[in-house]
Amino acid sequence: MAPATVCYRCDARFGEDRVRCDCGEPLWLDQDQPGFALPAEAASPGMWRYGDHLPIGVPDGVASAAGGTPLIRSRRLDEVAGCRVFVKDEGENPTGSYKDRGSAVAVSRVCQRGEDAVGTVSYGNMAMSTAAHAASEGRPCAVLVPADVPAGRLELIDQYDPTILRVEGDYGELYADALELTRTLPIRFLLSDDPWRISGYRTVLFEIVEALHPEVPDAIVLPASSGGFASGVWRGIRDLQEAGLVDQPPRLYLVQTAASDPITRAYEAGRDEVTALPPADVGETIARSIGNPDPPSGTRALTAVRETGGAVCSVTDEAIETARRQFARRAGLCVEPASATTLAAAARLTERGEVETGESVVLVPTGTGFKELGTGATPVESESVTRESLRTRIEGVDSGH
Amino acid sequence: MAPATVCYRCDARFGEDRVRCDCGEPLWLDQDQPGFALPAEAASPGMWRYGDHLPIGVPDGVASAAGGTPLIRSRRLDEVAGCRVFVKDEGENPTGSYKDRGSAVAVSRVCQRGEDAVGTVSYGNMAMSTAAHAASEGRPCAVLVPADVPAGRLELIDQYDPTILRVEGDYGELYADALELTRTLPIRFLLSDDPWRISGYRTVLFEIVEALHPEVPDAIVLPASSGGFASGVWRGIRDLQEAGLVDQPPRLYLVQTAASDPITRAYEAGRDEVTALPPADVGETIARSIGNPDPPSGTRALTAVRETGGAVCSVTDEAIETARRQFARRAGLCVEPASATTLAAAARLTERGEVETGESVVLVPTGTGFKELGTGATPVESESVTRESLRTRIEGVDSGH
Repeated sequence: MAPATVCYRCDARFGEDRVRCDCGEPLWLDQDQPGFALPAEAASPGMWRYGDHLPIGVPDGVASAAGGTPLIRSRRLDEVAGCRVFVKDEGENPTGSYKDRGSAVAVSRVCQRGEDAVGTVSYGNMAMSTAAHAASEGRPCAVLVPADVPAGRLELIDQYDPTILRVEGDYGELYADALELTRTLPIRFLLSDDPWRISGYRTVLFEIVEALHPEVPDAIVLPASSGGFASGVWRGIRDLQEAGLVDQPPRLYLVQTAASDPITRAYEAGRDEVTALPPADVGETIARSIGNPDPPSGTRALTAVRETGGAVCSVTDEAIETARRQFARRAGLCVEPASATTLAAAARLTERGEVETGESVVLVPTGTGFKELGTGATPVESESVTRESLRTRIEGVDSGH
Repeated sequence: MAPATVCYRCDARFGEDRVRCDCGEPLWLDQDQPGFALPAEAASPGMWRYGDHLPIGVPDGVASAAGGTPLIRSRRLDEVAGCRVFVKDEGENPTGSYKDRGSAVAVSRVCQRGEDAVGTVSYGNMAMSTAAHAASEGRPCAVLVPADVPAGRLELIDQYDPTILRVEGDYGELYADALELTRTLPIRFLLSDDPWRISGYRTVLFEIVEALHPEVPDAIVLPASSGGFASGVWRGIRDLQEAGLVDQPPRLYLVQTAASDPITRAYEAGRDEVTALPPADVGETIARSIGNPDPPSGTRALTAVRETGGAVCSVTDEAIETARRQFARRAGLCVEPASATTLAAAARLTERGEVETGESVVLVPTGTGFKELGTGATPVESESVTRESLRTRIEGVDSGH
């Protein structure tokens, strides 16, 4: 193959390692261009590839861009996780999380029906996603956040210009308040377990199965907070089973932060119902996007685990931070702490023998780490050199640092 | 259509607006599932869809995930830009910028050839992308940054664990130093205009053309810094013209920050060559990812503009900040300031009559805004309410704030 390099200006040709032409201009490759064909018919983009199986027509604006995230074979994570690792990078959604798959259906539906306003109860990824989708449609949006919301979170949500209301009092009670407001006012609050969101979440499973087809992964590992995403993935599995496309479905594994893990506790106690954790059992965690002490879809998520033969486990902040570094240093992926839980969990599950060496396991980091990084808060080691000493220093780079 | 909602547990069915079952569990939609078909053969993912036209085999790891970003019809930007706006959201790449398309080819090539180490000269998106791709392959990577690099930038690069060298002295001279080191040491510095990077950048143009096919956009607007990305897009246009797929190619428009705009100055003066700006002509800007006073591919980028009938313009920080807000508030997209320049430029180009109303224009925000947002540095207006006063306050949401 070995293409040549060529100058756009003087057409001079060089070997493949040259960077600049003798005329001083930069080179580009002079590859053969075999007939370039465009497909006869293009599928709809992203998750709308599965538009026949979604309950609304294909929208435009940011909702058209949800999903279609890559599934990455990350071999260098195998030795950490103890199995064959694939990563479904949901951080590569328009607002940086899987929430866009849900908002794309649920917010678009409100707009397509001509309803007035949308709202949500969140100060994280769901708030950003809902506000962004409303902004793209020019619809009013109300976001209910706790009174003590951190300033950085507010900044991320505020860019999309929703009405942000800091609510004094028990934030957990707002779930019921919001549904009541939806029943009686011209606003639709789209919460974590809204059926129209769940419908959109199914597409992540369709994409995973299609990307690996005809192999079906042995296991899928998801962070679990409200249980809504796990519900969507399970529903997707059931849809494909009903369609006869999947015989042996993947086992669903859920991970929680040890600081707030009601689903793990119900699983470990052999209970069928997930119940709210008492406040005394809820701690602080770096995994800000999870840690819901009273998950509205917790019991459904637990059922999904039991029905598919999976498990639920919890991981500590220390394990989460280690896994976050491993995602970056071994896979080149910047994930939020809540998403790093998936790698920490995979390592534990293989240790326990629940996942076997050689099994294919899909980790689903649900949100990008870029929202929480780059503040300069973490001290970084770096080394100062002069231009003159650069050669000597670079000679040492390839034998380690 | 109007699907029902149904309970996974007790099979009770309800209308499409219900959220929870009488049994207390959350509902999901009970859509018909018409036969679900998987395609006979799957294309390679992302930019590797065009693997026949790329100079290396399909890699795995993070390099497999580059490209495949959405092209979004953003109607609410039309009235700001004065034309039919499409947005190619390059922030949805694995490390949050278009640089991944170049690293996926250039870094993977080094690894596929069994070479030792990679390096780059950057303290922005190219540094992150190069380091992430090296990490995914387990290769040593050296990143040369200026001595006074901001702490937040270091944190973003450091997560991928390259050797970071803060170089004292003239940062602009490092371009030549790095090429010299590549010639004589077992390390390959991959700079902004590396031919193998440029080869990868072409895929963004292929994706744009395929997404709009059979329409060809009238214009494409890119931020310009080194001129490397513009070179890749131009090269892609030329490839498609040679293949007979595009008769009337899109016009290429480049935008620079007014604080450092050597390509604009050459364009406006009618010169054929882009020359370095003297230090006295270089200012500070919020558009940190552009603002290169001595672009290595500047002349080639200028040639691309002339050959395609486009133009180059500069925009102020004030216009950039306004455009950044418009991207979020009207399109639901979080873009970095350097990328917001594209919208500010489109507005100016239509005002000047260089782009006509009704023309289709593709804006290419090259990097996500999430890396620079969420520090809490910007004060945010929000309103405090009690749970009791929520109803009254929400009643006002849909008539504006």
